[in-house]
Amino acid sequence: MTYPSRYIESAVNEISRLPGIGKKTALRMVLHLFNEPVENTMKLSQALLDMRTKINHCHLCKNISDGEECDICTNPKRNRELLCIVESARDVMAIEKTSQYPGLYYVLGGIISPVNGISPDDINIPGLIQRINNNEVKEIIMGLSPTMDGDTTIYYLSKKIREIKTHEELHITTMARGIPVGGELEFTDEITLGRSILNRNEVK
Amino acid sequence: MTYPSRYIESAVNEISRLPGIGKKTALRMVLHLFNEPVENTMKLSQALLDMRTKINHCHLCKNISDGEECDICTNPKRNRELLCIVESARDVMAIEKTSQYPGLYYVLGGIISPVNGISPDDINIPGLIQRINNNEVKEIIMGLSPTMDGDTTIYYLSKKIREIKTHEELHITTMARGIPVGGELEFTDEITLGRSILNRNEVK
Repeated sequence: MTYPSRYIESAVNEISRLPGIGKKTALRMVLHLFNEPVENTMKLSQALLDMRTKINHCHLCKNISDGEECDICTNPKRNRELLCIVESARDVMAIEKTSQYPGLYYVLGGIISPVNGISPDDINIPGLIQRINNNEVKEIIMGLSPTMDGDTTIYYLSKKIREIKTHEELHITTMARGIPVGGELEFTDEITLGRSILNRNEVK
Repeated sequence: MTYPSRYIESAVNEISRLPGIGKKTALRMVLHLFNEPVENTMKLSQALLDMRTKINHCHLCKNISDGEECDICTNPKRNRELLCIVESARDVMAIEKTSQYPGLYYVLGGIISPVNGISPDDINIPGLIQRINNNEVKEIIMGLSPTMDGDTTIYYLSKKIREIKTHEELHITTMARGIPVGGELEFTDEITLGRSILNRNEVK
């Protein structure tokens, strides 16, 4: 594609680096901004810079936060006995959206993935161990995706946690795996289907 | 959605103003930038600002341009007898991509649309008339979309042009309308199909 201006070209190139955005979509976005008042582009540009440079991480749960400690960790209504371990800040948002979880979180910032060269040293494990040594925590919920990497991470973390806490001191659980709500039994893969039979729940 | 930081929220809000981008996609983009080196966000932010503040319009064809006159207008190899009238800079890019058009352009910056309240006064018509008064132009190609608004604009412009130039002095043409290449005759709408019979071409 030949662009009528190198500024258009450079903006298209930068935007199309973002996930899920191709050159055509990027060009559409750029020309949209170009036809709007200059203030809109300034606001967008500033919002991106602020987002990247002004955000902190909560020093307790490592989640994204505006201050030293995040709103969840400082909320006196949250149950401090539950700690849900998740991969990223996005997972926290997804779980928070359900309004079903009253406890606290710990954001690993990644999961162990031998294929992608991510070892246990690359994720926030020391902070997690320190957090668990706090005697308040009674249950660890492994809020990781049910994938090969997720299961590897759950296995590794469970081993680590068991080095410092016994079964009596601390429960370790994973989120339920089964047929998604609204999903068709017929089209569910056999591993999920098999598990959902083994882990069947009593109808109350 | 509750965001863990107001900076994330504000960046998501600004990005989701862009066409075709919802809050979920915007959040994905924001978190992607957040996990990348700060330089990437700075480059993106600067590229957007530059694009919006440094670009000119070519004073001849009103196309987007880095300088006073665009690369197409200043190219001595372009045929100055042909002038293609288009709605926007995007249409110029689309036609240029075909490498089939040797002439010059004129960008209206919109088309007459009574439904959307765009009248002839809202588009660059005076510049066009001035351009046509230049005796070099021998043919005007109406490169406008074959829609109601496009046809209205073509009709209006033709009338205006005929006030200053006769049929002998200046040809006015539209782009061919017919079955798209690769399209199925069976699924072509009846107006297009009817026109493509009336305007049939001899097989050479």
